[in-house]
Amino acid sequence: MTNILNKKIGIVGGGQLGKMMIQAAKQMGFWIAIIDPTEKCPAHSLSDFHIVAGLDDKNAIKELAALCDVITYESEHINAEALIELEEKHGATIYPSPKSLKIIQNKYDQKTELHKNNVAIPYFLNVTDSGDLPSVGNELGYPFMLKSATGGYDGKGNYLINSPDDFDEGYKSLGAGTLPLMAEKFVDYEMEISVIACRAICGNIKVFPVGHNTHVNSILDETIVPAPINKQTMELAMDTAHKVMEVFEGVGIFCVEMFVDKKGDVLVNEVAPRPHNSGHYTIEACVTSQFEQHIRAICGLPLGDASLTRPVAMINILGEEGFDGETLVEGVSDALAVKGAKLHIYGKTHTKPRRKMGHITATADTVEEAAKLCRKAKKCIKIIAKEE
Amino acid sequence: MTNILNKKIGIVGGGQLGKMMIQAAKQMGFWIAIIDPTEKCPAHSLSDFHIVAGLDDKNAIKELAALCDVITYESEHINAEALIELEEKHGATIYPSPKSLKIIQNKYDQKTELHKNNVAIPYFLNVTDSGDLPSVGNELGYPFMLKSATGGYDGKGNYLINSPDDFDEGYKSLGAGTLPLMAEKFVDYEMEISVIACRAICGNIKVFPVGHNTHVNSILDETIVPAPINKQTMELAMDTAHKVMEVFEGVGIFCVEMFVDKKGDVLVNEVAPRPHNSGHYTIEACVTSQFEQHIRAICGLPLGDASLTRPVAMINILGEEGFDGETLVEGVSDALAVKGAKLHIYGKTHTKPRRKMGHITATADTVEEAAKLCRKAKKCIKIIAKEE
Repeated sequence: MTNILNKKIGIVGGGQLGKMMIQAAKQMGFWIAIIDPTEKCPAHSLSDFHIVAGLDDKNAIKELAALCDVITYESEHINAEALIELEEKHGATIYPSPKSLKIIQNKYDQKTELHKNNVAIPYFLNVTDSGDLPSVGNELGYPFMLKSATGGYDGKGNYLINSPDDFDEGYKSLGAGTLPLMAEKFVDYEMEISVIACRAICGNIKVFPVGHNTHVNSILDETIVPAPINKQTMELAMDTAHKVMEVFEGVGIFCVEMFVDKKGDVLVNEVAPRPHNSGHYTIEACVTSQFEQHIRAICGLPLGDASLTRPVAMINILGEEGFDGETLVEGVSDALAVKGAKLHIYGKTHTKPRRKMGHITATADTVEEAAKLCRKAKKCIKIIAKEE
Repeated sequence: MTNILNKKIGIVGGGQLGKMMIQAAKQMGFWIAIIDPTEKCPAHSLSDFHIVAGLDDKNAIKELAALCDVITYESEHINAEALIELEEKHGATIYPSPKSLKIIQNKYDQKTELHKNNVAIPYFLNVTDSGDLPSVGNELGYPFMLKSATGGYDGKGNYLINSPDDFDEGYKSLGAGTLPLMAEKFVDYEMEISVIACRAICGNIKVFPVGHNTHVNSILDETIVPAPINKQTMELAMDTAHKVMEVFEGVGIFCVEMFVDKKGDVLVNEVAPRPHNSGHYTIEACVTSQFEQHIRAICGLPLGDASLTRPVAMINILGEEGFDGETLVEGVSDALAVKGAKLHIYGKTHTKPRRKMGHITATADTVEEAAKLCRKAKKCIKIIAKEE
């Protein structure tokens, strides 16, 4: 097994985030192994070794640790206990820390930790069962957000309670008591933003510029950078991300999603302990991408320059509605005819409605121009399924 | 076999150029197969399929053609006849055209073709055997360059004849008549430059900015862009590259190496029908890299924007003198501490003195600043061999 850089990297998960981590790592010459249940996952053909197994598979994670010098992951929905055991009993090096991961995995615990450390977040309450909902409603007012504390993403696991009439439906749709729940005051936000930040093993922290995110059907649609906010809010957002990195002692890339409310205050909505969709713009528009930064951090290397080189927009490409089957990408030629459009197709062999299949990035003199180019290119692309 | 983009790409050669082609192709979602004799070659872990065979192996090339929709190559030192046969008899799609490749492979034929088409080149003569050398010397004057017409690279295959006393040594060192030879008037050049250009199947041509190259021991050491030449010379160089693309009807990336003489005239020194070491700067400093452009061209996709986004320098990392064995890269941490330095390590498992093992790129406000960063980072890196 070749290891010219004295550090072999293992990644739990071989989706698009794993793939883009590997692209950055391979440029620098690293050896990479992955765990992913899908044989032809996006990262498969780029990795040196692929353990085909579930992300929760304890034995697979042990095998990965035996092969690699450092382990990281592309998703927070993995077996944190297995990683903690591996770290404590077998001395494996795992970044970000599995103990932080475990706290972050449970949104109630995550928010409690942030709150304890004076990071501004929406007012939140624990929900033990449906019987709590009337008093929660009284406390938070209406509407409020009912959330499953674990396992949610892309809006899954959230339910907006407009009045007590929604209690039954909301409670049922979030597992009817099978999942831990929490409730949050509804934030009538002006804007959703996110900040990608990275912490090195030595504690050094680099914060990327602030992105403005637009969601469609609760899935990220577009990120533009710099976000159209004033300098004060921008600094507040970046300082908040910096603080979050200190709270969780995260090593590697974290994404801190925030609301900007009508008063210009910044409230942390969610923390993801990994590279994030809203940070894909860094590949083309920052000196160091979030993926290279993550690899640098987990390997104990110095962090790179996180500054923006040009205004940028990123737009997601999702699987078309009505198609579920073997992926076919249409319109590549037309999309690439849009000057400056950079096309990323993840290589998922199976498309489903709204599945994240790729993205387009464009840089330009202004974010408006960059966004225009992205939208123009995106209009050309259709992800459909092959005819049987 | 998954093929979400309706085009599978085959590459003859899995060295660093193949690797970087794949990095660009994988970002866009392409399926890739390679031929390379080395199992752990740089492109190995990034390709979907690897035929372990020599680049001249006719059967391997046939197998590759059966697997792929389009074939390209990373080196001009391959079996052009086999490719021509494949194209003519089996209808394989191969870019750049094997017929152009065959002309380019022989420097005498290459120069003749350029000369016929009024592209300025150094005055050159055919050399059939050592008996020609006195008359060649009379015609060209001293010193002159004796070159093997085939197989040379990185200064190999060139011999500077300072006087008739050098005839014997020069003739012997270039194969003593076993290789076809040619002779060229010595150009007392002011500067070596190169231009990367790309031609699409439809005939559209995009020309990248002019790079200034510095060689050490006949191996490229550093490229800076834009080259420190006046606007007129720059336009002349770019027009020349454009013309060369038309002469050879090249599809894909070509590199046109040129001399700028004391009068500011531009003379073509050599044409390479592939992405080139002096074009690596395009990865960080152009909207579209030479590798993405090549993939776009050979797949019949529209060419991307070739313009420079920032002044840039690229410096090569070679295997240290005195080390021949299993590669070990030292100093990565120090190199990455240089702000803005982008490290590329090719992943060659065996190092040898002066072997191309990686490169460093840096962008900055000026080429001088970029070059300073590159040199600072390069000083940290040592490619040595592991102790047995």
